[in-house]
Amino acid sequence: MNIRLAIIGVGLMGGSFALALKRAGKVATVVGCGRSRANLEWALSHGVIDVIADHPAHAVQGADVVMLAVPVGQVDDVLADIAAHLPAHAVLTDAASTKQNVVAVARARLGAHIPRFVPGHPIAGTEHSGAAAARADLYDGRRVILTPLPETETAALQEVRALWQACGAQVAEMEPAGHDAVFAAVSHLPHMLSYAYMDMIAARADRALCLDYAASSFRDFTRIAASSAEMWRDIALANRDVLLAEIGRFEDHWQALRKALEACDGAALEAIFTRARNTRKDWSQ
Amino acid sequence: MNIRLAIIGVGLMGGSFALALKRAGKVATVVGCGRSRANLEWALSHGVIDVIADHPAHAVQGADVVMLAVPVGQVDDVLADIAAHLPAHAVLTDAASTKQNVVAVARARLGAHIPRFVPGHPIAGTEHSGAAAARADLYDGRRVILTPLPETETAALQEVRALWQACGAQVAEMEPAGHDAVFAAVSHLPHMLSYAYMDMIAARADRALCLDYAASSFRDFTRIAASSAEMWRDIALANRDVLLAEIGRFEDHWQALRKALEACDGAALEAIFTRARNTRKDWSQ
Repeated sequence: MNIRLAIIGVGLMGGSFALALKRAGKVATVVGCGRSRANLEWALSHGVIDVIADHPAHAVQGADVVMLAVPVGQVDDVLADIAAHLPAHAVLTDAASTKQNVVAVARARLGAHIPRFVPGHPIAGTEHSGAAAARADLYDGRRVILTPLPETETAALQEVRALWQACGAQVAEMEPAGHDAVFAAVSHLPHMLSYAYMDMIAARADRALCLDYAASSFRDFTRIAASSAEMWRDIALANRDVLLAEIGRFEDHWQALRKALEACDGAALEAIFTRARNTRKDWSQ
Repeated sequence: MNIRLAIIGVGLMGGSFALALKRAGKVATVVGCGRSRANLEWALSHGVIDVIADHPAHAVQGADVVMLAVPVGQVDDVLADIAAHLPAHAVLTDAASTKQNVVAVARARLGAHIPRFVPGHPIAGTEHSGAAAARADLYDGRRVILTPLPETETAALQEVRALWQACGAQVAEMEPAGHDAVFAAVSHLPHMLSYAYMDMIAARADRALCLDYAASSFRDFTRIAASSAEMWRDIALANRDVLLAEIGRFEDHWQALRKALEACDGAALEAIFTRARNTRKDWSQ
């Protein structure tokens, strides 16, 4: 195919999108743009991208498809940079973990181009970041959620859907608000808990001793606390209201557990643990 | 060797101890005892144990080494059952995740046998339980902490140390109180957080939707919430005071994160996430 793909933000997500589409033979040229020149040079020399653009406005010139894969806090600035330079036929999509705020800034910035914007969120990733973490198989078998708008063109939606399927992903659709609520619960809140826990460990006088004896439960529970601080700052702020509601919901259950422990109420503790355990054991992925 | 080993509680930990010592050729006979006849029959038919004893007092008759691998809440009852029946030369050890309370009940129950009791805690395990989860390699390369008492005989300590080394484990020594503080921080608290989070998910009206979109971060963060509810009820109660102190410490950091989010303070959020991330990335196991 002869698609010219522009990736704004050549990190784990954007770089893997490029590599997966190259693997599928779907792109002729990948133009990469980002804040770190060293990262772009790495991506160029390792075949993740074919051309470096030094500004988002240049990156999108002549592009057929534009993927925004920057931390969500930068989406507004990048849209402002590119809006006047998008080719009329170009399809624009993104990979941000929150959707309502992205839709809001897209409506404010894109004007007549909004029907060709298809908001998206690939449910993939690792705690690693940067182009060096990108992998052609990152999206194999993973879910990608698209949250099209009432005015989204069917052709644009189908094009983005087909690209993700070419990446090996399974595509689903949700409303932006429904998306943000579900991911606040299953992703954003666990990240906040893991970060706060790890911050507590970091602040301890006996940190070295604790880390020396930390084992597999610690390893898995804290894996996500190694995620990009900037990316998660942006996600937390972008989805603040929904996330605060989920935090309140968690705290109700946390306080119930704490009170049962304070009261030495073994039956109440066991009931909490059993409900949690049964739900977790029934979940399979 | 001609060691007769009695395992009280033939689950993941006790069963793996038997299998590892069999692999090492260190035991002649393994006697198993436990609450579930079906579990013991499974263990017998799969070679985890060689003999079923129907009561702890019978299990320890003629034993050279006795391993208590029951939920910590049962240690007192089992010690009461076996104390009068332990052969004078038998070495007694345990695998409980808390040590101060085990030491306290051992002092109350064992009388003259206390010098031959070596409290222990293998830092291994999975979220699975029961004899069917036992594996000969569970302890390969894992840490085992022994918390000997002032009156513990050197010979008994060396014998238990040698058995764990034969299981492939690395043996370290700590004070019981120091042990309990470290594991409240690196193990017990994460289990409480994961259980409370999972209990919150379990209670949701949109639980099925959430679980459908839950991915790898959820998977790892909640793995430990599938652990045995009874075992963790006992651990939480056994280490209650230390665990409550750790909960308070966590809540200070949690509230700081929550307040930063409420205030839309991106710099404070990023500082928390960065401290957590750096500490987690520096940790390797």
